[in-house]
Amino acid sequence: MRKRDQRAAAPVTMVDVGAKRVTRRQAVARGRVVLGDRARRLLAAGELPKGDAIQAARVTGIMAAKSASSLIPLCHNIALDGIEVEVTPTAEGVEIEARVRARARTGVEMEALAATAAAALTVYDMCKAVDRAAVISDIRLIEKSGGRSGRYRR
Amino acid sequence: MRKRDQRAAAPVTMVDVGAKRVTRRQAVARGRVVLGDRARRLLAAGELPKGDAIQAARVTGIMAAKSASSLIPLCHNIALDGIEVEVTPTAEGVEIEARVRARARTGVEMEALAATAAAALTVYDMCKAVDRAAVISDIRLIEKSGGRSGRYRR
Amino acid sequence: MRKRDQRAAAPVTMVDVGAKRVTRRQAVARGRVVLGDRARRLLAAGELPKGDAIQAARVTGIMAAKSASSLIPLCHNIALDGIEVEVTPTAEGVEIEARVRARARTGVEMEALAATAAAALTVYDMCKAVDRAAVISDIRLIEKSGGRSGRYRR
Amino acid sequence: MRKRDQRAAAPVTMVDVGAKRVTRRQAVARGRVVLGDRARRLLAAGELPKGDAIQAARVTGIMAAKSASSLIPLCHNIALDGIEVEVTPTAEGVEIEARVRARARTGVEMEALAATAAAALTVYDMCKAVDRAAVISDIRLIEKSGGRSGRYRR
Amino acid sequence: MRKRDQRAAAPVTMVDVGAKRVTRRQAVARGRVVLGDRARRLLAAGELPKGDAIQAARVTGIMAAKSASSLIPLCHNIALDGIEVEVTPTAEGVEIEARVRARARTGVEMEALAATAAAALTVYDMCKAVDRAAVISDIRLIEKSGGRSGRYRR
Amino acid sequence: MRKRDQRAAAPVTMVDVGAKRVTRRQAVARGRVVLGDRARRLLAAGELPKGDAIQAARVTGIMAAKSASSLIPLCHNIALDGIEVEVTPTAEGVEIEARVRARARTGVEMEALAATAAAALTVYDMCKAVDRAAVISDIRLIEKSGGRSGRYRR
Repeated sequence: MRKRDQRAAAPVTMVDVGAKRVTRRQAVARGRVVLGDRARRLLAAGELPKGDAIQAARVTGIMAAKSASSLIPLCHNIALDGIEVEVTPTAEGVEIEARVRARARTGVEMEALAATAAAALTVYDMCKAVDRAAVISDIRLIEKSGGRSGRYRR
Repeated sequence: MRKRDQRAAAPVTMVDVGAKRVTRRQAVARGRVVLGDRARRLLAAGELPKGDAIQAARVTGIMAAKSASSLIPLCHNIALDGIEVEVTPTAEGVEIEARVRARARTGVEMEALAATAAAALTVYDMCKAVDRAAVISDIRLIEKSGGRSGRYRR
Repeated sequence: MRKRDQRAAAPVTMVDVGAKRVTRRQAVARGRVVLGDRARRLLAAGELPKGDAIQAARVTGIMAAKSASSLIPLCHNIALDGIEVEVTPTAEGVEIEARVRARARTGVEMEALAATAAAALTVYDMCKAVDRAAVISDIRLIEKSGGRSGRYRR
Repeated sequence: MRKRDQRAAAPVTMVDVGAKRVTRRQAVARGRVVLGDRARRLLAAGELPKGDAIQAARVTGIMAAKSASSLIPLCHNIALDGIEVEVTPTAEGVEIEARVRARARTGVEMEALAATAAAALTVYDMCKAVDRAAVISDIRLIEKSGGRSGRYRR
Repeated sequence: MRKRDQRAAAPVTMVDVGAKRVTRRQAVARGRVVLGDRARRLLAAGELPKGDAIQAARVTGIMAAKSASSLIPLCHNIALDGIEVEVTPTAEGVEIEARVRARARTGVEMEALAATAAAALTVYDMCKAVDRAAVISDIRLIEKSGGRSGRYRR
Repeated sequence: MRKRDQRAAAPVTMVDVGAKRVTRRQAVARGRVVLGDRARRLLAAGELPKGDAIQAARVTGIMAAKSASSLIPLCHNIALDGIEVEVTPTAEGVEIEARVRARARTGVEMEALAATAAAALTVYDMCKAVDRAAVISDIRLIEKSGGRSGRYRR
């Protein structure tokens, strides 16, 4: 039998946001995929065997922002106003930035972070035939505004 | 108008794996969530405001492995034989390891990586009320076996 | 703060079925929705305000069998061969029977039970404008065959 | 050929709630899983072969509340404010209670009932290796408030 | 290698609708499935081998309207107020009309068109054993109201 | 009350394919989106306000092939080997061709048709700001092979 947890832990709960005000929320997340030389060259040239990873990653990121609440158990399902996902080739691989906006009672960090992660996984998937050692890193919140706690900038 | 891509790129395509042999495949992926002191303490104690992040992250990781092909455009939809997701508190936050197995014509790396990413997002979500600066890093393939190219170990 | 669990529990794991044989599996589940007189009469006559609950419940049950592994965390995602969902008006409300078949390494009980539960929820939903006190009961496995442990009949 | 329905029935329709007022809605649903002695003991001790059913069922219930409108054809898709799912060991098995809140034009009964059913299916799934005869029963609405028809209590 | 696109194209973006007003929106879409004589006769009589295509297509259309934003990358996910899907046998096959309403910052055309397409695919699927040559045609927007640009009627 | 159906119809059923042989299946579907002059010009130039519709439609088509069984009630959920979606600008708008392959007990027509329909809806969505009168037409099966009934060519 597997080792049992040495903790007695609190039940998971989706926090009630019903008493919060509807405000205009924005969140920006970023992340990177570190790629080997060959993958980076093929990706930038649009010549990866599976096709153009950059457009595919943008589309995937946008879809993932909308389905963040299906992926992440305690993430509220909210209607999003706008989603932008930038996927930019860099000297070490690819930089991803996702920007999400909504008028809602809760923030949209998870949507921006989920978009970033899904875009990164898509880049990985499309590069993996030429680079099995790619690494997805530094997925983090860059900026957040519209909530009770004011503006956050990393 | 937004800047246009300076590339003319190949169409995306889901590679045909029909000529490959069905073999027993395994993939192991790992990743980390770097947390601040307070989040780390509350998480280890099972006292985060949203409840036990460790069990929630395990469940989410398992579900994400099964839905990898809905999240990632060129990932094949295959029946998985087994999924294990370990979420372990460490000195810097949380270490995640996902292990996926299948008898299939294609590997299960994306399933293991998607499980790792989703578990990491869940940890982030459950810690974010106490730590907005958490970072998800080093999501990578650790081991892969069963394919034509033999065993890979990072 | 909510009460913490007084248990230290084992991590969830999706059991590896890779060593099991592919066999022809079948599972049959049943359940009931107990309805008040008016709802029962309108349902049998096809005159509920939301339309024909019986056909809608059949369709829903079939779809739920296919998505059982998205709903239930440790349920394997497998290709199903056939699904039948019967929804029959009775003296007390509605009787549901779901029959699922697959050639697989694991049983299809959860698919049959999920189909039954989803069909029952659909009946409830379509009757609730005229009967808020409906009860879904006795969702259970009736029969199962094809696994290592032979045929089970309740 | 299968027996044809002896009914000519009304088309299904998703009722238009656009003219209703947005109010604060709440619904509470309950259900039970009746388990044999051994399953009950292992579940309470967190020693089931598949791991901790109680935390897994809570997570599943919360996710099912958010996806109720994908499961149930005529259920409106609405943004939920909060979801709590309690899964409590009892003398006969497990008692489940789901509480859902939203500011919406329509009630959240189906979300609470879907959460209860999904949590119950998860408990069944995690116990079935040791108890094939478990029964899911008495899934019903306990309380509802916020609609035109006032507060309902069973 | 596949032929590369001869275009350098703009990144996809989900347009921000946050500055638009919430208004009562409606969209109506229509489409047809052209069927051979035998399929048409069996469908009208409810005697197709897979069962009643008309009710199944209505249910599917309603569900597809709700999941339009999961299917179509740049379609906003919004709460819908009401959905009606009519599936009517005609002299050449089947006519489908989907009507969707919401109070939202963006129109519901895609929801109505997705409902029509999904209902048409369902009719095709249920007729294909007797008619492989069926054609889905003329899926188009018939009417749209509630947006800044006023009422549109084809 | 809405008009009731004047038919008593057979229950829907997902046909059991368990007795069929696993063979290599292929299906090809095609469809068109008829666009006005301006939309056609902007799409071909990659200058539509929402970005590059051609790459987005390809990605969407591939994802829709994999989720055909979630969209279409009686469509079997099977593991697909390969998916190609071509989206080609023409004199009247856009021509779409989807090609799907699997080793399975049932054909993959619905997967190819769903891919075509979803790609067409995506083109519509991305053109609709400049052309509300676009029409999706002639979604049909072009070729099918691998089943008991041999090769079909339209």
